[in-house]
Order: sequence, then C-alpha cells, then structure tokens
Amino acid sequence: MEAKVAPIVSLGAEIVERIHRLAAISETADVITRVFLTAEHRAAAELLMGWMRDAGMTAQLDAIGNVCGRYEGDRPGLPCLMIGSHFDTVRDAGRWDGPLGVIAAIACVGDLNRRGKRLPFALEVTGFADEEGVRFASTLLGSRAVAGTFNESALGSKDRAGLTIREAMVAFGLDPEHIGAAARARSELLGYVELHIEQGPVLEAKQLPVGVVTAIAGATRLAVELRGMAGHAGTVPMALRRDALAGAAECIVAIEEFCASDRDGLVGTVGYINAMPGATNVIPGMVSFTIDMRSPRDSFRKLAVADVVRQIEEIARRRHLALEINVTHENRTVPCAAWLQQQVAEAVKDEGYPVFELPSGAGHDGMAMIDIADVAMLFVCCRGGISHHPAEHVEPADVEAGARVLLRLIENFRANA
Amino acid sequence: MEAKVAPIVSLGAEIVERIHRLAAISETADVITRVFLTAEHRAAAELLMGWMRDAGMTAQLDAIGNVCGRYEGDRPGLPCLMIGSHFDTVRDAGRWDGPLGVIAAIACVGDLNRRGKRLPFALEVTGFADEEGVRFASTLLGSRAVAGTFNESALGSKDRAGLTIREAMVAFGLDPEHIGAAARARSELLGYVELHIEQGPVLEAKQLPVGVVTAIAGATRLAVELRGMAGHAGTVPMALRRDALAGAAECIVAIEEFCASDRDGLVGTVGYINAMPGATNVIPGMVSFTIDMRSPRDSFRKLAVADVVRQIEEIARRRHLALEINVTHENRTVPCAAWLQQQVAEAVKDEGYPVFELPSGAGHDGMAMIDIADVAMLFVCCRGGISHHPAEHVEPADVEAGARVLLRLIENFRANA
Repeated sequence: MEAKVAPIVSLGAEIVERIHRLAAISETADVITRVFLTAEHRAAAELLMGWMRDAGMTAQLDAIGNVCGRYEGDRPGLPCLMIGSHFDTVRDAGRWDGPLGVIAAIACVGDLNRRGKRLPFALEVTGFADEEGVRFASTLLGSRAVAGTFNESALGSKDRAGLTIREAMVAFGLDPEHIGAAARARSELLGYVELHIEQGPVLEAKQLPVGVVTAIAGATRLAVELRGMAGHAGTVPMALRRDALAGAAECIVAIEEFCASDRDGLVGTVGYINAMPGATNVIPGMVSFTIDMRSPRDSFRKLAVADVVRQIEEIARRRHLALEINVTHENRTVPCAAWLQQQVAEAVKDEGYPVFELPSGAGHDGMAMIDIADVAMLFVCCRGGISHHPAEHVEPADVEAGARVLLRLIENFRANA
Repeated sequence: MEAKVAPIVSLGAEIVERIHRLAAISETADVITRVFLTAEHRAAAELLMGWMRDAGMTAQLDAIGNVCGRYEGDRPGLPCLMIGSHFDTVRDAGRWDGPLGVIAAIACVGDLNRRGKRLPFALEVTGFADEEGVRFASTLLGSRAVAGTFNESALGSKDRAGLTIREAMVAFGLDPEHIGAAARARSELLGYVELHIEQGPVLEAKQLPVGVVTAIAGATRLAVELRGMAGHAGTVPMALRRDALAGAAECIVAIEEFCASDRDGLVGTVGYINAMPGATNVIPGMVSFTIDMRSPRDSFRKLAVADVVRQIEEIARRRHLALEINVTHENRTVPCAAWLQQQVAEAVKDEGYPVFELPSGAGHDGMAMIDIADVAMLFVCCRGGISHHPAEHVEPADVEAGARVLLRLIENFRANA
C-alpha cells in the first residue's frame, strides 16, 4: 500500500468552480436544462474541451457529439482507462448529476499533467452527450454510440417540436450515417470507471463521502390497470362496491410491505397513480398505476416481480376487479467487475475512508459501456439524497474526497491480467 | 286497508314516453345536458307545463324558474301535498334522475283528473329548476327558493363563461330581486313527497321495484394532504423512504375497512387522489386525496369521521409524513317524517310489494324542503345502480310500480293530525 500523500493543491475547489460555470449553460437562465444536440450541448462541449486541453489532453467531439479527451501514457497509442460521465441534464436539473464525473476526471488528469506524470496506459475522459434522454425520450445515446450498440432505428425518434434525431444531428453538424465512427473497440479499453453522485441518501446516513458501487441494479417497470365499477359515493353500500382505488391501495401497501424486507437491495415504488373519474363523490371505477422494481440481482428481481404480480392478481380476484398488467421496461443488472471494483475499494481505503459498498439504483452510462469494457463506479455523497432537482448539492469536502479517490485509483491502476 | 284496484290504463307507458321526449331537450344532441337558466331550461319547463295543464292543473314558472303545477282539492285554496323532483341534469346525464319524479307525479294527477276525482286537499307538482347545481356549482337553488332559504349571496356565483346567476336570471326574464316570491309558507304544505330513482344497487340486489326512504344521509367531505419526501425510485432504500403514496394507500385501506362494517349505513369513499410529482421512477413526495363519508345518523357519522381522522393521524405520525386534513363540506341528515314515511310504506304494501326501507345516500331537494315541510321519499329501482351516466335505466315495470305506489299514496293521503 502506497503511503497517503498530502495533496499539493485542492482538486475540489477547481471542480466546484467549474461545476458552477458549466451550470450556467442552460436553455433558460432561471433553471438548468441542457439537452442533446442543442446550442447548449455545443457550448458545454466547447467549455469541457477547453478544460481538457488545459489539462494536457487532446480533445474532440465524436460522431454522436460526445466530448472525448485523451492523455497519452508513457508512450503514444496505449490502451486507455476510460473515465466518464454525462454532461446533459434533465429539465430543471441539479448541477452535479453527470458533470461532477466529467469535471473531476479532467481535474485528475490536470493534476497528473501539472506534475508531468505519465502512466503505463493512456487516460481518456469522456463526456457523454445524452444519458438522461430528455429530448428524444431515449436514454444512453452517447454511451451506446461509443459501445457500438447505437440502434439506428432511434434516429427517427422525435423531440417535442417534431424534429428527429437524424434532423437534429444534421442541424448540429453531425452526420447520422457515420455514428459508427464513435464506436470503440474492446481492445482499446482497459476498463471504464465513472464517478457520480449517489442520488440517494445512504452515504449521507452513513456519514461517508464516498461509496464503492457493486452493480447498477436491473429494473422492471410495470403498468397496472384495475377496473371495477364506478358508482355514487352515497348510494352504493360498502358490500356491493367494486372500488378500483381501494383495490389499488391494497396493492400499493402489499408492494411496499414485500419490498421493505430489503432483501438484496430490492426496492419497489408506485410513483404514478390515476383514479377515474376522479370526483370526490364517485367511487373510482378505474385506476392505473405504475410499479418500478429494482434489485442488483436479476434473478431475485424476477422472482420478486413475479411474487408482486401474484399478489396483485389475488387482490384483483378477491375484489372482482378486472386486471391488466404489462411490463413496460426491463433492464438487466450491470455488475461492476470484481477486479476493478477491488481497485476502487483500495483507493478509498488508501485515502483514509472506510470502504462501503452499495448498489446503484439509478441507471448510468456504464449500462452501455459494459458491452465493450469492464465497469466500476465510485459514488460521492449528495445532500439529502436529492437529485434531478435544483436543490441537488455536494459538499466541497466530499467533492475533494471523491476526486482524491479517483486520482488515487488512476495512479495505482493495474490492468486486469 | 283499501282493496287493490286494477289500473284502468297504464301510467308507466305514458311516463316512459314523456321521459324520452324530455331527454331530447339538451344542450347538445348526442348527450343529455340541461342546466339552470338556459334555453333548454325554458323548453323543458314549457313541455312540463303543457303536460300539467293536460292533467288538469294550472301551471306556471315561479320566481326562480321552477315549474309549479296545482290541482285543486274538493274546494279551492286548500293546503297541498307537494310532490316534486328536479328537471335539470348533470352533464352527459341519464334521463331518469329527477324527471321521473316530476313526470310520474303529473301522470298521477292526470289519472285523478281523468276520473274526475278531487281530494280533500290540493296537489301540487313542482319541477325544481336547479338541483344538480352544475352550471353555478351551487346545488338545490330551486328548492331553496321554495323553502325561503335561498342565499342572496349565491347570486354572484359565476358559470364557466363568467356569467353570474343574477345576470343569467335577467337574461332568462326573471327578476333576481324577487326570488322571495318563490318562497312558500309552511301552512300551505301538508307535506313534501319525492319519487326518485335509487341511484344505487340495493333495490336491484333485493329484486324490488320500490323502496321506502328513511332519511337523506348526512355527509362529511374531507381533503387530506400527506407530505413526505420525493426521491429516486432506484436509489432510496425502503427503510429511508417517506413515501406519501404508500402512506395514502394505507389510509385508503383503513377507511374502507372501517366503513365496511356497514354500521348504520355508513359509507366512506376516496374518489380523488393525486400523487406528486407522479413519475414512474420517483417516490411520491406529496399526495392529496378526498374522503366522502355518509350515514343516515349524524351522531354516528361524526364519531366515524373522528375515528378515521385519528387513524390517518396515526399513519402519518408513524411514517413521518406531514398531514393536513380539512373538512370541505358538511350536510346534516334529513330524516323522513315518521307519519309520512308510514303512509309511503302502506301504499307500497297496498300495491302488493314488500316494504323495504333504506336511507338515501345521495342528496335530494328534500334537504331544502325540510325547512318548510315534513318530507318523505319513494325510491324506484334503477339498473345496476347506475346514475349520472347515459346508461342510467329504469325498467318500464318498475316505472309502473313506482307510479302506482305514488298514486295510491296520494289517494290514501291523510294530513298529519
């Protein structure tokens, strides 16, 4: 184990300052919104590329609009450790979700560059242009292009104004016929590492600045519809009712109870509900709601989903409600590579922090990158677990801690044998 | 007990035919919508007044636009038994809710008139012009004017186009300063009886054409708001959640369970729910929902509401949810007068039907008329308990049964000693 070295300069101060500068690039001045293939995309990319060059990297846009910086190793052309995250945002976003990973990586390279340090491998910093998928309702477009799994059929997806990705790419100055040029070969990458805010409350509750991610949890989303019989709230005795909302409420309670055991990090959420006709004095005849279930173990998630579906079927049967359940979305779990996760854990320990492992319940670009590289992630604590919200915040000390761990990981990195 | 006399002519056939003719008077041709102080109000009133005159009554509009028909007793100027219901509708209504009571009453008078029969009291048939309160979001305007309890402050209430009741009355040709002229004195009325569809499923379940109403149930409406903490559906472990929707679901299940005991006809309904922000992948941070609780015994309803509120408070406390509960509406129970209800029951028995008593969970004009007269109601079975819907339906045989019972009640009526 290398002895801990006191930092020469603070990495965190520069990162925080740049986070705020990048946040100023937004569709509207009052909130942060920065989406794919817009003037804000270009302005943010230019800013990031400038910082990359200042850090001693070459920098360019790739064929899909990702920002790609490269810092050669001790000789040119070596395979790289890729460090990345995204710089697009949701609407009315926070400033840390995505940009922290890109800007922290640039800061680490800048620190190496200031010290004239070259490593026995190249470093690449990638700022993915579309992770959130806000504009075209299709996530991970940037990292999928890099992984060579961009689905050409997505080019016809339209934004709210009716513009397709294809048209928006042309307007941006990119050639939709050449997205393949963004794809990287597995042989070029030694691994993919991402630093990202946790977007959850666990690290804060544990009073830890950083956490080692074990996997990006797989998810199943279900749409449920229960149909009973609408009726007058005053005239239908309780025993003669087929109340779709009372049935849905029983389902929601059952889902929570089932997931609350927290087996293998299972979480289940009903985030959307609609009761029809929705009047104070009318028994709801139809209710639709969604279920989002996640677990870092796919087999367990599948069993859990099947169990919840069985419970809902039983509730619907007992209440004489017609039931329709559809799976609307399914993502497999992306496990972090043991060897790379181990190196992240060592870097955490070397920086003097307890090693705490947790799954990522949120999706990340690693879900696409897994197709061409082993993946690991480092989480940084964010206040109150709040994300996708202007109140999203990371303490400067935790920014510093995250960047230090990332730098330590880079400097101590050994490629998988 | 008077022996049962076979009807000379069917009352039901005429009533059904007139129900369909009245239903054709609507704002739009495809659905039934007939609201206060409109051209449809006037056209329907003219049609009803024509039928009243055909039945040997004098007929006129009163100062609020109600249709008032009078059939003198065996000498002019006697106090009357008033039989009434409303002829306004909700939007996209059925054709029976309201009109059946008015048209059946006219048919009964017509039958007396054909037989040249005069009674030792007058009969009045009132078609109330605004019971549903659709246009100005204020119910019972017609019957309140007759009861002398019309609240002048309601004159400023506006419809969706911004027109006040005052302005609409002037446009209709009524004088808003003379609403008081519609008020009747208690001494003019021997009682108020209303025939109305049940709007619930009880009579159909019992296979009965008619039922004797015991009371119009009092109601309490509550608005509930639960505030927890929104969060990412993937990143917040179950144990760290303050899920407002899971809390609301537990409340809804508790309300249903509490009311399902069906003590004293208690019913409780959550008809409206809204979860914010309402996205599949976000834990709801705020949920608002309504509760509608009714019972024909006010003291029991008040205890039940207090108990439900206590349960919700306990759920909110346990889940660390901020709670706000407000009573948005409260109506006292209107009991049917024992002596008049008894005469309705006798008429049912005399027509050969079992006497079945049930409360009215829905509101009716009797809620206003109670201020100047003893009230009784006769319910007629409607298919599937469906009301306020185009599928609202009454079987012709049940129309006939209801009209026969009403006629029997009229012919056998004895004023309260």
